[in-house]
Amino acid sequence: LKKGVVITDVGSVKASVVNALAPLLPAGAHLIPGHPVAGTEKSGPSAGFASLFDDRWVILTPPENTDPAALEKLSAFWTGLGANVDIMTPEHHDLVLAITSHVPHLIAYNIVGTASDLEEVTRSEVIKYSAGGFRDFTRIAASDPTMWRDVFLNNKDAVLEMLGRFSEDLTALQRAIRWGDGDALFELFTRTRGIRRRIIDAGQDEAGADFGRPHED
Amino acid sequence: LKKGVVITDVGSVKASVVNALAPLLPAGAHLIPGHPVAGTEKSGPSAGFASLFDDRWVILTPPENTDPAALEKLSAFWTGLGANVDIMTPEHHDLVLAITSHVPHLIAYNIVGTASDLEEVTRSEVIKYSAGGFRDFTRIAASDPTMWRDVFLNNKDAVLEMLGRFSEDLTALQRAIRWGDGDALFELFTRTRGIRRRIIDAGQDEAGADFGRPHED
Repeated sequence: LKKGVVITDVGSVKASVVNALAPLLPAGAHLIPGHPVAGTEKSGPSAGFASLFDDRWVILTPPENTDPAALEKLSAFWTGLGANVDIMTPEHHDLVLAITSHVPHLIAYNIVGTASDLEEVTRSEVIKYSAGGFRDFTRIAASDPTMWRDVFLNNKDAVLEMLGRFSEDLTALQRAIRWGDGDALFELFTRTRGIRRRIIDAGQDEAGADFGRPHED
Repeated sequence: LKKGVVITDVGSVKASVVNALAPLLPAGAHLIPGHPVAGTEKSGPSAGFASLFDDRWVILTPPENTDPAALEKLSAFWTGLGANVDIMTPEHHDLVLAITSHVPHLIAYNIVGTASDLEEVTRSEVIKYSAGGFRDFTRIAASDPTMWRDVFLNNKDAVLEMLGRFSEDLTALQRAIRWGDGDALFELFTRTRGIRRRIIDAGQDEAGADFGRPHED
């Protein structure tokens, strides 16, 4: 800790972390919170693999007055691992992650919970027919419970804001189904296809069908 | 159509289909609606592959008075393709599919729509950071818009029922986040992990991390 750069890998980069640690740092040590947006549903060192950071994005949220040389050094570390680096405020990071990661995890956990509580449809039916779409949600709903509990408790404001929008939009869709408004459904379903295409073009997901799940052909 | 078995592959097996077709069938032709719960986000013949039905489940919903020999023949057809066959009423099929497929598709379409409408977070940020979880949802939100519009219009009652439960559960989670009830979050997040494990044990998804998305190691 004497010299160089301190990296913290935190899902929710709070100013509070910086404020708590800063007074304890010796001279010449720099604190630059960062978040590599990469990984799988598995945690721990044995879940790593050589290409984990290839073409993934790392968010750095340097406090004001960060030494530019330290920031440069940390950026070079990440690009050396194959990642791309973006710099933003902790507040903006929390918003970006709320919609790209936290709310997706929450609704995945939620639908898996809803399905496992049904009486009309048995749990073994849910398992058997999961290839119809449900199983995609179970992957992220298998993520580490302790870490994700803490993410939600620590990024409350941004998660509640994005969740409010999600629920509002879902209510509008529900209404479209109830009233038979096929055009509203079709319009949305067409628009969302374009986002998938952009994610694949940006190298952020597999182009193959079904996430490239292994298939015999 | 003169002899043998008619198969219909319909996401939502409605009694109305049977009622409309039955009077038009010549003697010796049997109508047994069925739904193979298999496939990817791609549609059409070129999206097929040899192992498409291996270990997947096919739901048959034979009308009353179906010729047992015809049902036997159709079941043998599907098991010959590597699938397992289940028999149930159309009403139960619609409920099972609502929770394992239709609601998952709807919330995937919905969150992709919510994310693409934000002003505070740009669309290119959503794309760049999609590896945090969001991209999983874009796969099924890239499914055929025409087919899915029709699924929701035709399975309205079961979808609205399951969607009501989903929203109720999500509101409870939202409340747990707002009030800092970490135990409630932890309990759910632990329970959902078990469902993932059962889906993998049942051969309905990849055991590898990240759906077995190709990684260099």
